Amino acid sequence: MNRAAILHVQKSQYAFAYDAETLHIRLRAAKGDVGSAELLYAVKYDWTEGRRRVRMEKRCSDALFDYFFASVPASDSRIAYIFYLKSGEEAYYYSEEGLTKEYDYEKGYYNFFQYPYINVNDVHPLLPWCEDTVFYQIFVDRFRDGGGEKDRSYINRPWGALPARKSFYGGDLRGVSQKIGYLKELGVNAIYLTPVFASPSNHKYDIVDYEAVDPMFGTEEDLKALIASAHGCGMRVVLDAVFNHCSYLNPKFQDVLRRGKSSPYFDWFVVHGEEADVKKANYECFAACADMPKWNTNHPAVQDYLIGVALGWMQKCGADGWRLDVADEVSHDFWRKFRRAVKAENPQAILIGESWHDACAWLQGDQYDSIMNYSFTKACLDFFAFRKYGAQAFCDRLSEILMRNTDQVNEMMLNLLDSHDTERFLTNAGGDLKQLCNALAVLFFFPGMPCLYYGTEIGMEGGYDPDSRRTFDWNKEHRNGALSALVRRLTKLKREKIRGGVRMYVQGELFVMERGALTLLVNNTDRELSFSRDGEKRFVKGQSHEILERG
Amino acid sequence: MNRAAILHVQKSQYAFAYDAETLHIRLRAAKGDVGSAELLYAVKYDWTEGRRRVRMEKRCSDALFDYFFASVPASDSRIAYIFYLKSGEEAYYYSEEGLTKEYDYEKGYYNFFQYPYINVNDVHPLLPWCEDTVFYQIFVDRFRDGGGEKDRSYINRPWGALPARKSFYGGDLRGVSQKIGYLKELGVNAIYLTPVFASPSNHKYDIVDYEAVDPMFGTEEDLKALIASAHGCGMRVVLDAVFNHCSYLNPKFQDVLRRGKSSPYFDWFVVHGEEADVKKANYECFAACADMPKWNTNHPAVQDYLIGVALGWMQKCGADGWRLDVADEVSHDFWRKFRRAVKAENPQAILIGESWHDACAWLQGDQYDSIMNYSFTKACLDFFAFRKYGAQAFCDRLSEILMRNTDQVNEMMLNLLDSHDTERFLTNAGGDLKQLCNALAVLFFFPGMPCLYYGTEIGMEGGYDPDSRRTFDWNKEHRNGALSALVRRLTKLKREKIRGGVRMYVQGELFVMERGALTLLVNNTDRELSFSRDGEKRFVKGQSHEILERG
Repeated sequence: MNRAAILHVQKSQYAFAYDAETLHIRLRAAKGDVGSAELLYAVKYDWTEGRRRVRMEKRCSDALFDYFFASVPASDSRIAYIFYLKSGEEAYYYSEEGLTKEYDYEKGYYNFFQYPYINVNDVHPLLPWCEDTVFYQIFVDRFRDGGGEKDRSYINRPWGALPARKSFYGGDLRGVSQKIGYLKELGVNAIYLTPVFASPSNHKYDIVDYEAVDPMFGTEEDLKALIASAHGCGMRVVLDAVFNHCSYLNPKFQDVLRRGKSSPYFDWFVVHGEEADVKKANYECFAACADMPKWNTNHPAVQDYLIGVALGWMQKCGADGWRLDVADEVSHDFWRKFRRAVKAENPQAILIGESWHDACAWLQGDQYDSIMNYSFTKACLDFFAFRKYGAQAFCDRLSEILMRNTDQVNEMMLNLLDSHDTERFLTNAGGDLKQLCNALAVLFFFPGMPCLYYGTEIGMEGGYDPDSRRTFDWNKEHRNGALSALVRRLTKLKREKIRGGVRMYVQGELFVMERGALTLLVNNTDRELSFSRDGEKRFVKGQSHEILERG
Repeated sequence: MNRAAILHVQKSQYAFAYDAETLHIRLRAAKGDVGSAELLYAVKYDWTEGRRRVRMEKRCSDALFDYFFASVPASDSRIAYIFYLKSGEEAYYYSEEGLTKEYDYEKGYYNFFQYPYINVNDVHPLLPWCEDTVFYQIFVDRFRDGGGEKDRSYINRPWGALPARKSFYGGDLRGVSQKIGYLKELGVNAIYLTPVFASPSNHKYDIVDYEAVDPMFGTEEDLKALIASAHGCGMRVVLDAVFNHCSYLNPKFQDVLRRGKSSPYFDWFVVHGEEADVKKANYECFAACADMPKWNTNHPAVQDYLIGVALGWMQKCGADGWRLDVADEVSHDFWRKFRRAVKAENPQAILIGESWHDACAWLQGDQYDSIMNYSFTKACLDFFAFRKYGAQAFCDRLSEILMRNTDQVNEMMLNLLDSHDTERFLTNAGGDLKQLCNALAVLFFFPGMPCLYYGTEIGMEGGYDPDSRRTFDWNKEHRNGALSALVRRLTKLKREKIRGGVRMYVQGELFVMERGALTLLVNNTDRELSFSRDGEKRFVKGQSHEILERG
């Protein structure tokens, strides 16, 4: 046995309360190495007498590891446990003291693994609505100009022309409202709007006034109307919370620039020195952008202010949650308070962090619910667009990504192929629609919520920012009949039928995803591939996929 | 290379802020497998241009693994990093995507490891006073009867007789006060008192009135006087916070028993059904003890009440921190609020959880500072008392235990050989004082704070509860001259000289611990062993230890 490969971590994604009465236990071992893994568990005060033994299921594998799984009903949740692992003739107990040939149950209270007690406050609840939800991300300036009255003098680029960094096109909230019907027909049932609050930029990630809708995008009434209209169509609306930093034009930062240490807001930022100086950029900011000073989210007054902003918009407009910009640079302490306040206001509101990396430390139920799953993005790019690896490596990557987080986080994950912060997937795929279609099928079959970047359904292209933020071509709404038909089919499947755990594997070079009665076959090669199951054989053409449905 | 053995976990004990400007990075590899490990890091917004490369130090090893270490100065703390590992001819990059032969820096923003930003609120500060602190645990009823006026009718056992479960001897706070001088002379500079609040039992872990000192132990004035007197001698006093459960005689639970759901305290407990019934034990309790109902620490009012209790005693008496009873069964949410309140009251107060297991999930800086290190206890028992393994295995166990936690947690750890909840170490060692002496030397040289269970210094013995809670024999104060002399020597060394990181290794069968200028040689065999360093050779007798001092 490769003993150094065996891994279990207490109170982590390897041992978590799935709900108030169920523990999920995982164990990692080297691939193909452990023939059987058993979980020996008991209520810890009954360890020597009341032990049970269950065989763990090998749930998935990646390039190096097998992952074993067991679910433990825990009406008394004070669970002690160890593992018993067999590999050929070898057998080991696995406890806090590692792998041992013998195990002394009498001294177990010193070294068993434990889940000491499920406290309901600490359980990370799965938001049930995530199961059938399809997100659609809208970059407001580029989606739809709703016409009507507003000062249009800021618009400096005609709709349809390629964007530059500082282009303004006139897209707005009324435009989005007008297209709720279009989105509903597409099968979308949740919208993620990039920021809508007062800001000088087209992206509005540099906010000047958190309490006002930007006049370029409309009014507070427009936002209310948009959310009400979405709700009327059974659609949720998630707003973008930019709480890591603001615009240097924000009056609070301007006051600091003017008054230095005598400003009441001096400590709301992290200034190195007696006064802030934009030219010297002598304060913490986003990336290296002196025009976006970083909030000091360690400061109680800043915490209260920003939490108040979020609650205010939930109360005024009924926002269904927040996408949290640059979430991993904001303090854990802030997110804990933020979560408590937001969930008290609406327990069904979702919190989706922008973190491009393994964000386990934020996903224990006390901070965000999930993240924008850019690791999934990267895996799809490497497989479909860059052809960096084959089906088995792709399957391995996706499995590894799922094993990073608890099951409920996976089920709330915002999965995406692209966003305003990446190239368009289709462009990365050299404009090859077949690759996009295959990737979309995987996106919808993967546990979690698919998120379509606006215009994906009409085959919009674009390189890195600003090119990925082109205007939606409403004349070509149906240009890609097959593409938009596929999106419609997938959104319907997601809403109605894609349920339960995923099983992923490779047959020959075919990548297979099973979820309940549905099976997705993905052929990323240029040749026809076959799929056999239950004595039946099917052929899948090169560069295509098929969705099979049983029963 | 054993690729499946390579482990790094972001934002964990493998990557943590040691202080506001320093990251500590660890990497695990199979023992003897990786010849060189390099850390490649940069400010993440400068990843492609600003990377640095440092060789990691192999800091320690256990039975299966080597642990590599690097310290990263992080004045800009938005750190991205990957590893470069060499094993003979093999070399791999290690990123979020695992081990790869090549690494594409351009796409690093998708898969580098990261420490996104050190927010000061999230840093777990090391309490500087821990460095030279020696704890002494006192089980109050058994330490010293201070005489003077009190109702002595509860005393049912003569001082010196062996204890039964319900024995009362009359030890009290005045008794402790009288022996502050003795403790100071012994070299102790912190006292941990088991509970002192009103309770019917001798141990007082079942509290009836959290706001009153138990009359058996004295008065609030006695507690104030004791703490003031300790402070006057440069000694801290940590109290026992029993917040998982109370006595069924607690008036709040009695009200629930009487009034069921109409009691305002019904939700303060976790009752299964409409009314609580002690005979049916139809409510959550400690272990299987119906006389100790569990507080519902998920309830805001319970949280406020218990936090108020803790703050009250800090304000009234100047308690220097809390040992948290059954800490891991209380909600994370509670401990986060509790920590915030306690540290606001006194940032130097310490929080020591009672957790017998790997408690990483509670030791990230948002909950406790450390735990009672029973894994250390077990390792010492197995090596010295039970002779279960040799010096190398002991060294491996201690190394593994250190690698469970961040460096600052290790430095605040409460290390112990025994407590009121275990057999006396000396009794486990069959009364062999040589083993106790060797174990004490290791206890004092191990990172963290040694904690002596009262009477260890006079060779007190005792089996499991109640026998481990015998009365202190003040007539035999100096019975074991050599033992108490060793304790005095060790407390002095701890207070004055044992500083800096530990290096542990085995030479032949000799176990060696180096800390700064001090070297501890431990011979747990029955034969004389030799130790060579810098061309000099020394001999250490069987069953003994030596402390060498350079310079």
